[in-house]
Amino acid sequence: MGPQPKRGITVVIAKRAGFCFGVKRAVDMAFEAATRGSRVFTLGPIIHNPQVIEQLRLQGVEPTDTIDDDRIGTLIIRTHGIPKEASEALLQKNYTVIDATCPFVKKAQQYAKLLRDGGYQVVILGDREHPEVKGLMSYADHAALVLNGGTPMPRLKSKVGVVVQTTQPVNLLRHFVSEAIHHVKELKVFNTICNSTALRLEETERMAKKVDVMFVVGGKNSANTTQLACLCTSLGIPTHHIETASEIQVDWLDGVQTVGITAGASTPDWIIQDVEHRMRQRVRGGRG
Amino acid sequence: MGPQPKRGITVVIAKRAGFCFGVKRAVDMAFEAATRGSRVFTLGPIIHNPQVIEQLRLQGVEPTDTIDDDRIGTLIIRTHGIPKEASEALLQKNYTVIDATCPFVKKAQQYAKLLRDGGYQVVILGDREHPEVKGLMSYADHAALVLNGGTPMPRLKSKVGVVVQTTQPVNLLRHFVSEAIHHVKELKVFNTICNSTALRLEETERMAKKVDVMFVVGGKNSANTTQLACLCTSLGIPTHHIETASEIQVDWLDGVQTVGITAGASTPDWIIQDVEHRMRQRVRGGRG
Repeated sequence: MGPQPKRGITVVIAKRAGFCFGVKRAVDMAFEAATRGSRVFTLGPIIHNPQVIEQLRLQGVEPTDTIDDDRIGTLIIRTHGIPKEASEALLQKNYTVIDATCPFVKKAQQYAKLLRDGGYQVVILGDREHPEVKGLMSYADHAALVLNGGTPMPRLKSKVGVVVQTTQPVNLLRHFVSEAIHHVKELKVFNTICNSTALRLEETERMAKKVDVMFVVGGKNSANTTQLACLCTSLGIPTHHIETASEIQVDWLDGVQTVGITAGASTPDWIIQDVEHRMRQRVRGGRG
Repeated sequence: MGPQPKRGITVVIAKRAGFCFGVKRAVDMAFEAATRGSRVFTLGPIIHNPQVIEQLRLQGVEPTDTIDDDRIGTLIIRTHGIPKEASEALLQKNYTVIDATCPFVKKAQQYAKLLRDGGYQVVILGDREHPEVKGLMSYADHAALVLNGGTPMPRLKSKVGVVVQTTQPVNLLRHFVSEAIHHVKELKVFNTICNSTALRLEETERMAKKVDVMFVVGGKNSANTTQLACLCTSLGIPTHHIETASEIQVDWLDGVQTVGITAGASTPDWIIQDVEHRMRQRVRGGRG
């Protein structure tokens, strides 16, 4: 006899789960490019979601890690953007370039340049290894300080300008400004944190406090998905970070009354729906 | 038999007690003006210290509360500065004007104008009734929000610029920026808090934690002196806010081992020395 359906369990799905504006735009551009040409490449995986990368590969769109790849007919720049020098080098190429850099990231790049040109010591709050931050760094002439939650406050100059990796939590920024203002005479902050990231984190936090278990759906290599999972865990809620429905284990729902589902900005709707579907095969519930 | 000398008590005086740069400059300018002309007036009391005002009066320098006072031969603008409109009106007067506005306040006025002209919603952190803040307000075309610790966070526009009354504690600024950055896209802060205020508060706090009783010397109408006294009281240290040595009561030193003396930015050295002297008549100690 198979597992019994667990009646009486409520499933709630975050309204803001899944693709943000910039990711949806980029993925749409990639699928569209696939219909129009061959030899379509993305510079790096277009988003941090292995399932979407695999779907694109089936349409003939592949990641490459260099702009000098001889196979390139069309090159798609992903949401994270690229360093200024790479943008300039692309002008010399004979292939088609599709710029799917998130418009919010593009703005943050412009702000980094504006601050640098304005004589500010530029501070980038974020993860120095993240491609978005590497791009921002180039627009600050590679002279910025990159700080995240774990970095001790360095010695700052008297005139400091700040941009933030778009997917960072606002508390990192709050903490930085309240410390830095002690030490500087002028502080100019562009709060480049994407609203959709902030709202998704807030909604996830509210949801996690009301349910027995959280499912966070998205790439294990997606920083913002991992951030959602960490948030839930830090609230003391049992949390499962899964990439696809196939990872769900039956006993995860034992003794559970309410389940919350959220997903990172790079998780496509069909994967979230798949998780929801797999769960509804076992339980009843409603979309929250 | 008079009171016994209380041997073994240590008296420590804050290095940063008394006149700050701007106050010393203004008071010097007033005494200097007195030697050179008659009918010398200050627009409002030149500093918030009744004893200094009285000394100046003996030299013929008197406060007036209007620039239209027919008796004026020379008018001295005090450290707090004056509103833009009053500055403009003074250009039409036939008497001599001596501008003793603190250079740091002048800078804050320029920053307020810069922010206003730059399209920022200007926020002034400080006391709306304080003459310095009234001056700053005028340079923001009277369109600024004035906030202090007790004000709930208002609805902010997306582009906010901040200046601070020079004598405010830095915690007010820290609290504001860490709250505001949540709600705005761009935040430009001129940390116009005078270093001397910040350092005096820090030194006073360190001192208060080490002594049995604090004496805070300065005008009862001086905001920054009162702030020092409040700080000491909030640390749970017995604190006496006195204007002159004559207020010291003998039993205030009963059972006391260590005494700390600090003073506001508008307290002249001779009053601090007087307090020190009066105390040394009773106890032994050293300058800290």
